[in-house]
Amino acid sequence: MSGRLAILGMGPGDPELMTLKAARLLGAAEVVAFFAKRGQPGHARRIAEGRLRGDAEELRFEYPFTTEVPVDHPHYAVELAACYDAAAEAIGARLAAGREVALLCEGDPFFYGSAMYVFDRLAAHHPTIVVPGVTGMSACWTQAGCPIAHGDDVLSVLPGTLDEGALAERLAACDAAVVMKVGRNLEKIRAAAERAGVLARAIYVERGAMPGERVLPLAEAVEPAPYFSMVLVPGRRRPR
Amino acid sequence: MSGRLAILGMGPGDPELMTLKAARLLGAAEVVAFFAKRGQPGHARRIAEGRLRGDAEELRFEYPFTTEVPVDHPHYAVELAACYDAAAEAIGARLAAGREVALLCEGDPFFYGSAMYVFDRLAAHHPTIVVPGVTGMSACWTQAGCPIAHGDDVLSVLPGTLDEGALAERLAACDAAVVMKVGRNLEKIRAAAERAGVLARAIYVERGAMPGERVLPLAEAVEPAPYFSMVLVPGRRRPR
Repeated sequence: MSGRLAILGMGPGDPELMTLKAARLLGAAEVVAFFAKRGQPGHARRIAEGRLRGDAEELRFEYPFTTEVPVDHPHYAVELAACYDAAAEAIGARLAAGREVALLCEGDPFFYGSAMYVFDRLAAHHPTIVVPGVTGMSACWTQAGCPIAHGDDVLSVLPGTLDEGALAERLAACDAAVVMKVGRNLEKIRAAAERAGVLARAIYVERGAMPGERVLPLAEAVEPAPYFSMVLVPGRRRPR
Repeated sequence: MSGRLAILGMGPGDPELMTLKAARLLGAAEVVAFFAKRGQPGHARRIAEGRLRGDAEELRFEYPFTTEVPVDHPHYAVELAACYDAAAEAIGARLAAGREVALLCEGDPFFYGSAMYVFDRLAAHHPTIVVPGVTGMSACWTQAGCPIAHGDDVLSVLPGTLDEGALAERLAACDAAVVMKVGRNLEKIRAAAERAGVLARAIYVERGAMPGERVLPLAEAVEPAPYFSMVLVPGRRRPR
């Protein structure tokens, strides 16, 4: 009989922002799997520190690259697919042997998470549960003391990889926005925010709810931004 | 010396989807405050059940209305402002007396939460911390088994109160979408999804991660939807 796969949202970084359910299932897992950047301990694994069973088997999967290879490069999809295939195979073998596996995911698994690709490969074949988590963007607007969306606001979540014109147009068309994938797109995002007339209220958050957190006006941020950085444009603050 | 105000995201409904931090601060609070609909126990309070100190003072604030009065009605803003003023005054009095107050908020406080209006009134005058929570939309896409956003997807969060043309235009302009405030807007949202060409993949979720949860294709949902309902349009599923 197959073991169960639990895909656990570990939240944005502060281990105390894990849910009670994720903590419980993490503490019960016989196998704990996670992705990590090459040479790094793994962000999700760091959040889980101290909560694994003493005898848990750890499965560490390394991304072949993170931001070094552009998304439209032919190697990108092929090598990532091979990485997810290998992870699914290793996890699937444990499940087939009847073991309970927890796959750790930073933030919320179904919100821009890599765990979705493992879910796609395994959920049809093994009992699977997914535990949602606090997203990185929630941590950022909370740490910035910045209520993001109110009443009937339209909120857009945008990748910083869009070109400046598209970014400006989208920023102008919504009430509130979160721009992810800031990195080397910071100057472009700032220019787009200026064109859209939202620069004055745009906030830059680096490593929200993690060690080394910084919050400053977007106008004052300097490129390059680290991987865990975001730009927030709070919505309409109608006095109430 | 002032007590501290802790605004706690209680998550989407399942009490186990509360964060460890929210559970800890809730269990320590001398005063527990929350909003509730008239005649109802209060959604955030229900999630907290069993975790309050035995001697905690409870402060219950009733909304003057929820969906009965339209947002653009002159009474709407005035009466809600009076409700938030009264809540802030009652909480402020406890803080001034040196008591620790937890204000409970369903979902994530800074994401369309009423607690923002109390934060606006009190944070400048009393030590305040905010604890982010799992949002209702995360619970909905998780319970639907529906990864919502991938890679460079643009995600839009839209109020169902927009008119059909605006909804259709916005649905067509993004990769993934969440439509909130479904209620009596369900038929209009479905028509807009059809015009935008996304009806085939649109999912309707009622009471995600709560008792009575239902997930079905938007095409099959019937009006009126309850308050806790959402429409999800998952983003591009590039095979990977």
